[in-house]
Amino acid sequence: MTRIEHDFIGDLEVPENALYGVQSLRGKENFFITEERNSQEIYFIIAFAYVKKACAMANKELGVVEPKVADAMIWACDQLINDTEKYRDQFITDWLQGGAGTSTNMNANEVISNLAIQHLGGKLGDYTIVNPNNDANFGQSTNDTYPTAIHLSCMFRSNILIKAAEQLRDALYAKAKEFDQTLKMGRTHLQDAVPMTLGQEFHGWGFTLNDEIENLRDAQKHLLVINLGATAIGTTVTAAPGYPELASKYLAELTGLPFKNSADLIAATSDCGAYMTLSSAIKGLAVKMTKICNDIRLLASGPRCGLKEINLPQLQPGSSIMPGKVNPVAAEVANQASFLAIGLDTTVMLAASAGQLELNVMEPVITYALFTQMKVMANACDTLRTKLVDGVTANTERCRDYVMNSIGIVTLLKPHFGYQVCADIAKEGYISGKSLHQIVVDERKLLTQKEWDEIFNTQNLINPKFVK
Amino acid sequence: MTRIEHDFIGDLEVPENALYGVQSLRGKENFFITEERNSQEIYFIIAFAYVKKACAMANKELGVVEPKVADAMIWACDQLINDTEKYRDQFITDWLQGGAGTSTNMNANEVISNLAIQHLGGKLGDYTIVNPNNDANFGQSTNDTYPTAIHLSCMFRSNILIKAAEQLRDALYAKAKEFDQTLKMGRTHLQDAVPMTLGQEFHGWGFTLNDEIENLRDAQKHLLVINLGATAIGTTVTAAPGYPELASKYLAELTGLPFKNSADLIAATSDCGAYMTLSSAIKGLAVKMTKICNDIRLLASGPRCGLKEINLPQLQPGSSIMPGKVNPVAAEVANQASFLAIGLDTTVMLAASAGQLELNVMEPVITYALFTQMKVMANACDTLRTKLVDGVTANTERCRDYVMNSIGIVTLLKPHFGYQVCADIAKEGYISGKSLHQIVVDERKLLTQKEWDEIFNTQNLINPKFVK
Amino acid sequence: MTRIEHDFIGDLEVPENALYGVQSLRGKENFFITEERNSQEIYFIIAFAYVKKACAMANKELGVVEPKVADAMIWACDQLINDTEKYRDQFITDWLQGGAGTSTNMNANEVISNLAIQHLGGKLGDYTIVNPNNDANFGQSTNDTYPTAIHLSCMFRSNILIKAAEQLRDALYAKAKEFDQTLKMGRTHLQDAVPMTLGQEFHGWGFTLNDEIENLRDAQKHLLVINLGATAIGTTVTAAPGYPELASKYLAELTGLPFKNSADLIAATSDCGAYMTLSSAIKGLAVKMTKICNDIRLLASGPRCGLKEINLPQLQPGSSIMPGKVNPVAAEVANQASFLAIGLDTTVMLAASAGQLELNVMEPVITYALFTQMKVMANACDTLRTKLVDGVTANTERCRDYVMNSIGIVTLLKPHFGYQVCADIAKEGYISGKSLHQIVVDERKLLTQKEWDEIFNTQNLINPKFVK
Amino acid sequence: MTRIEHDFIGDLEVPENALYGVQSLRGKENFFITEERNSQEIYFIIAFAYVKKACAMANKELGVVEPKVADAMIWACDQLINDTEKYRDQFITDWLQGGAGTSTNMNANEVISNLAIQHLGGKLGDYTIVNPNNDANFGQSTNDTYPTAIHLSCMFRSNILIKAAEQLRDALYAKAKEFDQTLKMGRTHLQDAVPMTLGQEFHGWGFTLNDEIENLRDAQKHLLVINLGATAIGTTVTAAPGYPELASKYLAELTGLPFKNSADLIAATSDCGAYMTLSSAIKGLAVKMTKICNDIRLLASGPRCGLKEINLPQLQPGSSIMPGKVNPVAAEVANQASFLAIGLDTTVMLAASAGQLELNVMEPVITYALFTQMKVMANACDTLRTKLVDGVTANTERCRDYVMNSIGIVTLLKPHFGYQVCADIAKEGYISGKSLHQIVVDERKLLTQKEWDEIFNTQNLINPKFVK
Repeated sequence: MTRIEHDFIGDLEVPENALYGVQSLRGKENFFITEERNSQEIYFIIAFAYVKKACAMANKELGVVEPKVADAMIWACDQLINDTEKYRDQFITDWLQGGAGTSTNMNANEVISNLAIQHLGGKLGDYTIVNPNNDANFGQSTNDTYPTAIHLSCMFRSNILIKAAEQLRDALYAKAKEFDQTLKMGRTHLQDAVPMTLGQEFHGWGFTLNDEIENLRDAQKHLLVINLGATAIGTTVTAAPGYPELASKYLAELTGLPFKNSADLIAATSDCGAYMTLSSAIKGLAVKMTKICNDIRLLASGPRCGLKEINLPQLQPGSSIMPGKVNPVAAEVANQASFLAIGLDTTVMLAASAGQLELNVMEPVITYALFTQMKVMANACDTLRTKLVDGVTANTERCRDYVMNSIGIVTLLKPHFGYQVCADIAKEGYISGKSLHQIVVDERKLLTQKEWDEIFNTQNLINPKFVK
Repeated sequence: MTRIEHDFIGDLEVPENALYGVQSLRGKENFFITEERNSQEIYFIIAFAYVKKACAMANKELGVVEPKVADAMIWACDQLINDTEKYRDQFITDWLQGGAGTSTNMNANEVISNLAIQHLGGKLGDYTIVNPNNDANFGQSTNDTYPTAIHLSCMFRSNILIKAAEQLRDALYAKAKEFDQTLKMGRTHLQDAVPMTLGQEFHGWGFTLNDEIENLRDAQKHLLVINLGATAIGTTVTAAPGYPELASKYLAELTGLPFKNSADLIAATSDCGAYMTLSSAIKGLAVKMTKICNDIRLLASGPRCGLKEINLPQLQPGSSIMPGKVNPVAAEVANQASFLAIGLDTTVMLAASAGQLELNVMEPVITYALFTQMKVMANACDTLRTKLVDGVTANTERCRDYVMNSIGIVTLLKPHFGYQVCADIAKEGYISGKSLHQIVVDERKLLTQKEWDEIFNTQNLINPKFVK
Repeated sequence: MTRIEHDFIGDLEVPENALYGVQSLRGKENFFITEERNSQEIYFIIAFAYVKKACAMANKELGVVEPKVADAMIWACDQLINDTEKYRDQFITDWLQGGAGTSTNMNANEVISNLAIQHLGGKLGDYTIVNPNNDANFGQSTNDTYPTAIHLSCMFRSNILIKAAEQLRDALYAKAKEFDQTLKMGRTHLQDAVPMTLGQEFHGWGFTLNDEIENLRDAQKHLLVINLGATAIGTTVTAAPGYPELASKYLAELTGLPFKNSADLIAATSDCGAYMTLSSAIKGLAVKMTKICNDIRLLASGPRCGLKEINLPQLQPGSSIMPGKVNPVAAEVANQASFLAIGLDTTVMLAASAGQLELNVMEPVITYALFTQMKVMANACDTLRTKLVDGVTANTERCRDYVMNSIGIVTLLKPHFGYQVCADIAKEGYISGKSLHQIVVDERKLLTQKEWDEIFNTQNLINPKFVK
Repeated sequence: MTRIEHDFIGDLEVPENALYGVQSLRGKENFFITEERNSQEIYFIIAFAYVKKACAMANKELGVVEPKVADAMIWACDQLINDTEKYRDQFITDWLQGGAGTSTNMNANEVISNLAIQHLGGKLGDYTIVNPNNDANFGQSTNDTYPTAIHLSCMFRSNILIKAAEQLRDALYAKAKEFDQTLKMGRTHLQDAVPMTLGQEFHGWGFTLNDEIENLRDAQKHLLVINLGATAIGTTVTAAPGYPELASKYLAELTGLPFKNSADLIAATSDCGAYMTLSSAIKGLAVKMTKICNDIRLLASGPRCGLKEINLPQLQPGSSIMPGKVNPVAAEVANQASFLAIGLDTTVMLAASAGQLELNVMEPVITYALFTQMKVMANACDTLRTKLVDGVTANTERCRDYVMNSIGIVTLLKPHFGYQVCADIAKEGYISGKSLHQIVVDERKLLTQKEWDEIFNTQNLINPKFVK
């Protein structure tokens, strides 16, 4: 069963009980690209409802929308905010769309209007009671409400991402503490360098993640600058005097987030700088994740023909050919999520570059990219933490053997025998394959075992005393 | 209700009627990244079934898998190929996964085994009848079957993309014919240059697309080189002698596509060159699409304050503020699809770079990227064609007015009056804003109206006679 | 004439008067990639000298390098800082090098040592007087001094870039003021939208640049965190106690920049986050530049067959075919510089991802990318400002004609005649091609000329009174 | 001393003896971006001279340029081709320029004209004898000669690149032969997999490079399609009838390369597809190079705490702290060259996307990117080959020990004892750390030493007999 709705293109049959209307349906018919609908991203629906609620509150206060209508729309927005799952399917347009989000904005306007109409006892589609264009969109444009809703939903999503990254960081720090006495070899150029602890390795990974968490927080500051009330191009045309400030104020109050309008609404309306900054920060996180996962897979390589300094939890059989093979799958998938997030940064850059004059019509693909980036990176953080980091154990003995078997630790003998003797010992080690202990204690008898132990105990290897 | 299955990690409860088994379920539990499952890409399921069927046929012929078991598995593969929708939900793992596709391969092995078990009258999960590892995966590895299935599904998907691009090209060529007498101004640097026809403009767009269609076909050639029978690292370990050639031969026969094995199976097993070549070709298409859409939006700009040489079909109201505004939404969304496809090329490049020694474990994200690229670009081609190109009309008069009002056509007077006089006329035009006709015919009376008409008729403007 | 120098690879002939030595020469011979030498980037030489000076001062104070030797090295560093051009040619290694900058560090050590040797009356190459490894590099490693020098030189270069961007911003703001009464049409989707001023357009461009200037400043904060004293892997091995803090303190004092060491020197030694943040900020600037240049070229399109709202200064003949053609070459080249800068951000990302364990050996290519990005973007800002923005003039009449000839301004009649009448007028306008004035005043006589003038005067069009 | 030249912008002082003229100088003054001049790329100068020579020959034959003038210009072009170094400094414009290469084209026109003038006994700058616009550029435009010259110079440069890649491939193949009996462990997921030979490893690297060499050759085919004679926008306006075909024919004859004109000159004039295809192929090579270098660095890791399967030549001291440390610097720098080349592919993509209507004005940055990509990748191939691959040696014993010490080789016992017993042996091995030999021969006595040797001899490990 359907009802007939109308716009200036013509008539269209809308499912009888649909809360959406003719313009949503046009959007659905016109755009079939990702084959994924807005309904998929629940935070975007919630965010749009908050924005529309703030606008309705401002218009009511300024007396430009009838109180009864405004109240019904506010009630409708609350339904969307508090019972989102129930209404999710009403958001029917593809993520990617022309019109800079007009279809999505009208989808929200139509759903809110029809909910309000029902609330006021009217019939779905009777827009004389509450009108999607004249009431739900009063003093508004897609060009200010859509980006404001994206900013808000990016705040939601980035908070989730930040939390996931923080938990991963903390898991790494916890392991850093656990392994703070595990002596191991440091490597530069993948070549043996000087000793360190496994705890320092894990702490470094956590610390480097923390830098990116701070970058994400810095990026959030840009999201808090919005253009609500800018309307079509930033001149606030059709908005009541005082409306932009008031609508932003209400949005800040409703969400508890210190939103404020840009000092140049014209610039803000075509600008995509905040998205780029956010995407760059996500890319930064992904790059760090890449490095950490690469390192973990390297240190876990083996079991016999690799470094095998650490053991990873066994999550699943690694091979149908070799029984017992276990692969570092959690790290591998986090690597892949990072590659996806980095690639989408290119998408954001391209779309952000494509603004023309008073608008950037490419915002929908930016939102698609950002939400995907934040989703996969948050999931990757969670996966790496729960499936890998939390369960890592150290091969303490192997780690120590590497150090003691290395030539690099000859450095600790330099103050005792001088550079020349040490270089000579090192050279013999390289050529013969003998261990330092063998050369120094057993053969050359330069040190007694006791003296050797004093110099090469773990504590002195971890924190060597400076001797000139 | 569940049944218990077991692998070397331990026991796991599997839904009683599930065709998948314990290893699929481990994959599902371990990987939650894109939140999208393999089930989403139907061509990948079909492709995997073809690969497994070819393997079963080869193993049967070589006598290394029991005929009864092989036949049951072949029957099972046919079910997946012919009734894919019915079994789609059995493919439960996330697109992004560690293990280089092992979970997906085992998912296929388990579904095929259980279907075969049912066919042989056994009970789901009774792997003594048909075993996912020993039978469905005999002489195989994830490292050869998974990439082969990707190559095949990329053939399917790229054929769809090529067809969509060809249809768009042909639509542009049809318009080229329609507009072959529509005189218009050519522009370089966005500055007025010399006359051409609108038909030439459309033909150029089609022609440039056609180059990319050829690149896509060239990329397909790389997909036809596979590593079936390479098993774990390319040494064919565990495969019966003759199996690699035979399995590839059967795959070629079943699909009608001339697949053949690489001359270096070791190289082929870690190599992702074919994916890169395909992604580069898609990127090329996306870049051309970007240019075409940008041009269309520019030529359709207006209606009063832009070029407005062409009119686009009205798909939906363009604004809630200005009645009657219509935006070039189909071109805008095709632009966005292109940005997405280009960004994912970065993802493919990153993943392809991350191979290590005998394997590239990042293939799952490559497949995710490629399928998304091909899907959105095919949809974008269809959208642009059906919603825009097919319905474009020319503003013939406006196009002609631009030409006649331009200074550039002074070039046609050069043979008659010499460079110096023409430059002088041009200069007067630029400064005074007068038309050429006004200066030459009305004021300077250098030509009669009749002479003017002979030189400046459309045919001579389209194909000017060369006069030294 | 040459002198013989020696390292553990063997002997090598060095030009007799060269300040560099054997290790610099090995680097020069081993690396021939960009075919551009370090000598090209003068700020990098200056920065390295500052770092080495700070290290020498700290080592002297801590008593680990002989005062006489330290003083001579400090003197040598001052030569490089104050008389850089004179010594530029001594920096002979290719920008791109393996060894994570070891060749460049040793080049600096050798030049400083030989200058100090000369200062102390010794003979070039007599490293018993001042030794490149033992004295110039005391308590140091390539892995801390090289990145610290990059951080400092990026501060120098980014200050130049910021200044260039600020000057461009201010030039745009000056034009914004000049054009603040120039009424023009705003456009969204390249379609006619609502009126604005040309001043608002220019202000928006400036404002959006300003956001990126702030991002650059934020990125500089990351550059101020260094790892001086970390030595090989961050454990400060071979450095005297207290040295890391002291060396950093001296570097801050010498440069007037508040450098401080990272709280995790292990993490800091392999981390490339600061470079990524800087590159992301540069990319942001390049994206904004892209948009601005695109807009400028669009508004200047014509002269007859384009928008031609603004006139650009004539810099050079635009065509060898059409006399008088002038192209927007300054904007075009700024576009291209931006593309180069954006592409190099991909390079930085790739290199930053490639860190392994305790080091990222890809830093040299990062520095090459960053310096190129900053150079071309600063030059692009200067070019756009001096060759284009400063000389832009407005086609005031044409701008106003577009507005008055548009349909969009019917919006201003809505409060007077209601939505329905206005929509009807708009429709007639679209179909007939008539101007609003013609329909409203001449034909329908809905307004007198005087009433029309009151509503459609420039001031009311720029700041329309809100009427519900 | 200077002479005065003039264009329609005004007068300008040109150095008295300069072969270039006023328009070159305008270009030099207007564009200061990369701070690198065209003079740097010698192949571009040669290519431009070939193009201009072909044009002059065609114009002479068609009788549209005076024979004497044409002959003088042809002579001038030959000077540039045969004595390029002598005239290099006359090409004074920055690589990056607005105007789509007009400054460079006019630079070539002016140099050729002045050389011809001198040859005819005239005075530099006396363009009544030979005119840069009317003679050197007759029937030409920047928009066809500049891209044609780029195509030709890309042929030159890509031939150099292909040769360098082939030599690297052959060096890898030579090592493959040398190491074809060196048994080693294959690794997937960085985890121990099954045995292979070191020769297979090297062959795989060579083979994967070879794929990219073929891609480069495929890309060259696109370069051979040109638009010579298209003039301003592809309509051949100002060119004599028959000229486009004739000029292309002469270019093909002069260069020995089968150039031919595009079937759609309008499309070809704004199209950058050939550049993208070339850049994609270079990117592909860079990605393969990345993988190969990563693998080499991994296999050479150590000496004590890494895999150390291969030894690299010692090129330079690796550390100022640890005597004797040697780093894989040639591989590292090849990695970095690859990152640079990949980043510049983004630049090419951005510029190729930015075509508008009848021209893509961003070609200069594309040329800059392409030449840099080809230069650094060719150098990287040469460096990797001569400084690393040619001198690699195998640690045969260590390679074999890894295999024999691994658990993975239990696979070879499966036919003898069955899956269950083998899995049990493997499990004991993993838990206890014992070698397979110890468990099977010493403890469980399942095989005698002789039987063991028959199964685990190198030949059987390299080419295991298939046993079901």
